[in-house]
Amino acid sequence: MSDEVRLARAYLSRVAEPPAGALAAFVSAVGPVRAAALVRRGQVPGAVDSQTSARRAEDRAEADLAAMAELGGRLVVPEDEEWPAWPFTALDQAAAQGLRCGVAPLALWVRGEAELSTLTERAVAVVGSRSSTGYGQHVAAEFGHGLAASGVTVVSGAAYGIDGAAHRGALAAGGPTIAVLACGVDIAYPRGHQGLLERIPHHGLVVSEYPPGLQPARHRFLTRNRLIAAFGEGTVVVEAGRRSGAKNTAASTSALGRVLMAVPGPITSSSSSGCHDLLRSGEALAVSSVAEVIESTGRLGVDLVEATRNTEVGLPQGEALRVFEALPLDSATSAEAVSVESGVELARVRALLPELELIELAVRVDTGWKRSHEGISRGDT
Amino acid sequence: MSDEVRLARAYLSRVAEPPAGALAAFVSAVGPVRAAALVRRGQVPGAVDSQTSARRAEDRAEADLAAMAELGGRLVVPEDEEWPAWPFTALDQAAAQGLRCGVAPLALWVRGEAELSTLTERAVAVVGSRSSTGYGQHVAAEFGHGLAASGVTVVSGAAYGIDGAAHRGALAAGGPTIAVLACGVDIAYPRGHQGLLERIPHHGLVVSEYPPGLQPARHRFLTRNRLIAAFGEGTVVVEAGRRSGAKNTAASTSALGRVLMAVPGPITSSSSSGCHDLLRSGEALAVSSVAEVIESTGRLGVDLVEATRNTEVGLPQGEALRVFEALPLDSATSAEAVSVESGVELARVRALLPELELIELAVRVDTGWKRSHEGISRGDT
Repeated sequence: MSDEVRLARAYLSRVAEPPAGALAAFVSAVGPVRAAALVRRGQVPGAVDSQTSARRAEDRAEADLAAMAELGGRLVVPEDEEWPAWPFTALDQAAAQGLRCGVAPLALWVRGEAELSTLTERAVAVVGSRSSTGYGQHVAAEFGHGLAASGVTVVSGAAYGIDGAAHRGALAAGGPTIAVLACGVDIAYPRGHQGLLERIPHHGLVVSEYPPGLQPARHRFLTRNRLIAAFGEGTVVVEAGRRSGAKNTAASTSALGRVLMAVPGPITSSSSSGCHDLLRSGEALAVSSVAEVIESTGRLGVDLVEATRNTEVGLPQGEALRVFEALPLDSATSAEAVSVESGVELARVRALLPELELIELAVRVDTGWKRSHEGISRGDT
Repeated sequence: MSDEVRLARAYLSRVAEPPAGALAAFVSAVGPVRAAALVRRGQVPGAVDSQTSARRAEDRAEADLAAMAELGGRLVVPEDEEWPAWPFTALDQAAAQGLRCGVAPLALWVRGEAELSTLTERAVAVVGSRSSTGYGQHVAAEFGHGLAASGVTVVSGAAYGIDGAAHRGALAAGGPTIAVLACGVDIAYPRGHQGLLERIPHHGLVVSEYPPGLQPARHRFLTRNRLIAAFGEGTVVVEAGRRSGAKNTAASTSALGRVLMAVPGPITSSSSSGCHDLLRSGEALAVSSVAEVIESTGRLGVDLVEATRNTEVGLPQGEALRVFEALPLDSATSAEAVSVESGVELARVRALLPELELIELAVRVDTGWKRSHEGISRGDT
């Protein structure tokens, strides 16, 4: 691939504020090099012009690429083999439906050695409030660790709270993680996560569609969230208040046809109320473990959670249970008394007692029948 | 109604172990007085005989009614006005479908002054594990209190843990509650709830289909659970481990076409794992407050939770948000600079700034534009 293409996309990534649907369509139609030349000259259709006129003189492509190389980073473009083409088909489909969360990025600024396409082959987004509780951070870290240890890339937004805990959990497993930023990848935002953002490129990637130096802004977080949703096969909302930005990522997840999951928490905690709203409305699936997250997002038949939860307790049913319950624990009793106590007709009692004896729930003694000492004591009914 | 009918049903309630579908059908066909006489003599069809032969000599009807009157209780029969005919139609329908949780009781032994039909007009079951946590007991008590205070009868099983907390919460509101027992209503089971079971008849009812003196047994808890499910318009499972008996009540609730609800809790607590299974499978609806329980079970249009949760944050959207975000907080800047920073074309910026000024998000000063001090600071994105 020519440097010309990379330079053109570097220029275009600064000239329009994403998501710029008209520009993206224009680039698809005429190619990035010609599109860049026409944008520079202002010779573009009205819709493209309104997305590019404000910044079309801002041509810093060479300097941006040089600065990124200096940081050990690069610009990944759709013409590269490592472009995450498959995850982004959902964005194209959403764009075709006119959804705002559609529109694939024109290029991605990336720090880290891993290949973007490899890391997004099997990925799950883990997101949540900045104002998280100890419970939420614990769960996010556990999920981040467990997913990474299973070879699933943990995608998040590097924010304080849940995002940071998820990244840290993944790093603790030495496993893959992707931080998608709402600013240039050369900017440590939030400032307190500078160390975290420096560690991530060693075990994963820091990614942004914004060019170097661009500062975060509220609308950029919302725009960025669609990429977090697109990268993952599903999104887990660990903790979210009713107004958390994580609910925006959740909405993008559903709009992109990805699996939306929410972690239950105490109903006494407002930090979980956004999750509970998502569960109550049926938008999100409840997940309580890494295994359930993998089962919910994984390939059918490969990642099913072991069906441990419907294990039979091994108790007799129906009349056999009634007969068993009517047996005394200590002194023995007659089949006739068991019949009266259980309400089961005598002939059935006489047939059932030996069956209970076979499975070691009843024992026959000289004076009649009683429960076996191996018998199960009364459970939680 | 004649004493004859009540005596007949008192006899029949002891002679067969519920649910006794064949006997119930026989009673419907020939009437309770004739059915009792024929059962006594053993002149019944085979299916009825197998349900009644073991105890048909146990005729204590008069003594049972006298003992119950002594306790201030009574036997409520389908021929009485206070019979909960409407809630029990679901049992009849389930019986018609051959479901084990079907079969309405032949009669109900009741302690308490309230009318059974009045108390079950508006009722919700609140159930859960005996091995509950402080969190679960807190929620059960809050729900019990809030439902009773709203005039909704709290139905439960008087067990330790969640059941007891729900009853106590309802009693604290002076409100109605029904305890459905798996033994005679003259028996204090569990023993530690003797005080609770003595208080309930003053503000509600203690109910059982088992005659006086009958001891609890595992199969009786399971049989009893269908009545808890039938009495409520819905069942809330507050806390339940994976093997809790509350899951049986949950299954009956669904089978009877009632609304099944589950309270989320910390995923780190095994006491909530049964609830989370019900949520994950889609069997139960998540409920986080009394208002949501009432909304889920209530009459349409009357009990809707106020739609507070989708309140708009009052922020501008789209390009207006981008322009707002591009405004500096302190020193002012030009419309041209705002255009470059936001990527919004200059003409739109010039139109949007006065709009932002009108809603007090932007302010025009001598040197250009800046954010208004009334402007909203960056939220949780």
